[in-house]
Amino acid sequence: MQPAGPSGRLASVFHIRDTWVHDMVNRASIAITSRIVSCLLAGLLTLAGTFAAPAQNEPLPSWNDGSVKQTIVNFVGKVTREGGPDYVPPAERIATFDNDGTLWAEQPIYFQFQFAFDRVKALSARHPEWRNQQPFKAVLEGDARALAATGEKGVLEIIAATHAGMTTDAFAIKVAQWFAAARHPRFDKPYDKLVYQPQLELLQYLRANNFKTFIVSGGGVEFMRVFAERTYGIPPEQIVGSSIVAKFELGAEGKPLLMKEPKIEFVDDGPGKPVGINRFIGRRPIFAFGNSDGDYQMLQWTAAGPGARFMGIVHHTDAEREWAYDRNSHVGKLDKALDEGRAKGWTIVDMKHDWKRVFPFQP
Amino acid sequence: MQPAGPSGRLASVFHIRDTWVHDMVNRASIAITSRIVSCLLAGLLTLAGTFAAPAQNEPLPSWNDGSVKQTIVNFVGKVTREGGPDYVPPAERIATFDNDGTLWAEQPIYFQFQFAFDRVKALSARHPEWRNQQPFKAVLEGDARALAATGEKGVLEIIAATHAGMTTDAFAIKVAQWFAAARHPRFDKPYDKLVYQPQLELLQYLRANNFKTFIVSGGGVEFMRVFAERTYGIPPEQIVGSSIVAKFELGAEGKPLLMKEPKIEFVDDGPGKPVGINRFIGRRPIFAFGNSDGDYQMLQWTAAGPGARFMGIVHHTDAEREWAYDRNSHVGKLDKALDEGRAKGWTIVDMKHDWKRVFPFQP
Repeated sequence: MQPAGPSGRLASVFHIRDTWVHDMVNRASIAITSRIVSCLLAGLLTLAGTFAAPAQNEPLPSWNDGSVKQTIVNFVGKVTREGGPDYVPPAERIATFDNDGTLWAEQPIYFQFQFAFDRVKALSARHPEWRNQQPFKAVLEGDARALAATGEKGVLEIIAATHAGMTTDAFAIKVAQWFAAARHPRFDKPYDKLVYQPQLELLQYLRANNFKTFIVSGGGVEFMRVFAERTYGIPPEQIVGSSIVAKFELGAEGKPLLMKEPKIEFVDDGPGKPVGINRFIGRRPIFAFGNSDGDYQMLQWTAAGPGARFMGIVHHTDAEREWAYDRNSHVGKLDKALDEGRAKGWTIVDMKHDWKRVFPFQP
Repeated sequence: MQPAGPSGRLASVFHIRDTWVHDMVNRASIAITSRIVSCLLAGLLTLAGTFAAPAQNEPLPSWNDGSVKQTIVNFVGKVTREGGPDYVPPAERIATFDNDGTLWAEQPIYFQFQFAFDRVKALSARHPEWRNQQPFKAVLEGDARALAATGEKGVLEIIAATHAGMTTDAFAIKVAQWFAAARHPRFDKPYDKLVYQPQLELLQYLRANNFKTFIVSGGGVEFMRVFAERTYGIPPEQIVGSSIVAKFELGAEGKPLLMKEPKIEFVDDGPGKPVGINRFIGRRPIFAFGNSDGDYQMLQWTAAGPGARFMGIVHHTDAEREWAYDRNSHVGKLDKALDEGRAKGWTIVDMKHDWKRVFPFQP
């Protein structure tokens, strides 16, 4: 089930109705006549819905009952209760989510790395020299150790070859094509199907309570924007991520272009996350969810604000349905944040026990 | 009249009601019972409003009738007409506005420069050496020529002294204090009262038609965020601007801080505007408004997208109520963008003729 977009909407009768009401009311703000009709109609539709589908009201159906689910529901309840001591006005209900390992899977390697490696392979026909040139040789031979040995310099060369030297529009097309063609090695599904069903429901639940949901990820912002809106219901302007420099140019016939350059602009990871939140959002979240030490400072930054706060960590404990890893993982290492989270009473999701379902395609 | 915020809402019976309807419907998305009540109530309220205040329906009351106003209304009409050839879904209705000279005045100097100069004066008691040290000497003596002679280096030193070396929170307090105390030399009003009434109405009109309104300004993003929400109804996360580097640190007792450093991070002006739009919004606007050559590339970028487009330029032609300046102005120079706008049929606002009222405090 997807929370937004034309196909996603079909999945949820409840939210179709909610969108209708919202749209109708907004459109009606100019035409008074249509407003009357819409609102009365909305009332009637709602009335009909009450009797037709009462079971849809239960939030977070893929979360098992227990302290974690209860903490989420209690938090949302208290910050939305007008007149209550923890009330937060809608405009300040900022929720930030890490992406890799928090909203979708990140094993066996970050999916964006897989995209880059697949691009290297596709481009290698035009670059025969890569067969003997690191870091490309390592990618083409699937030699993880040799690739790791190329270090940051290697990563930058791969980014330069696969993410730069083209316009922002051309890059978005490449990413979309990859999502359409590539399959995850373990699950044999398109990568954007490896999203966590409980988190899709949580995003939707927060938005239904007038939270504004953001992604704050170490991943590339222009990579995420290709799939995040249809997959998570999060629009491009609510995605904070890492980036390389883009440059404005006038191309053929004076057509304005944004060219992607092989130069890191911003790394939205670790201490970069509060910086990214400040730069792009300009407000401190009251709700943040991560899964690794790359989210540690975002969680600290969220925790340090005044009033009610929610800090959540997805702990990957389910080798059967997903993966089990934490302190010693090469991807999504969770160590310091787990210790501080436990010490300070942050909400630690035990994937195996707290999630009824992990991926939408699983039973 | 201000379009949003507690005080602003009081100004408009029409929009109070609109907000109520919206809030009520949203809150009702969980509690079915309250939804029924709200929607029926909203219908009744609306019905009442129809008879009580029909005159409020006229959009853009401070715009004189004429081709400019008609172009705006026609554009909004066609992109919101479902099934029409120019229809744009709400999520893609991105509108970007320059700030200085487009939403508020920028004479005799950019207001943020005045803030910086006032800070230099306030800090000079602790810096007796500034009396003999440029660029501070020039600021303290009000010597514009000497200040200009210090060039970019001088500007950076002033920014370092007035915008850096403190936390983001501390800076926001300084800015708020300045807005409360400082008065514009010509109009003897707080600087945030020098906003353009027609543009407040335009922002509100666009939002009523499900546009998402953004500021894309050469001004400092953290400066603008202090007043933009209450003044324009534009939240912090919809402001794109220039910035200096912020760094995450743990302060006393492990408290996380963002320290502002004396280093330029991003200049959101000229060719930087499409770059900023891509970075922060990730979608090309369908509507852009500027007033100077600093907005030229934003207007070009907007114009180059597919489908219906609106490009607007405020031409300052009203020395009596505001100022008259364009090609030779030291602030807000409008030259190339005016030529291209005229050649390509962009919408040029002649302030003197197209605006019934300029500032809210004027008759």
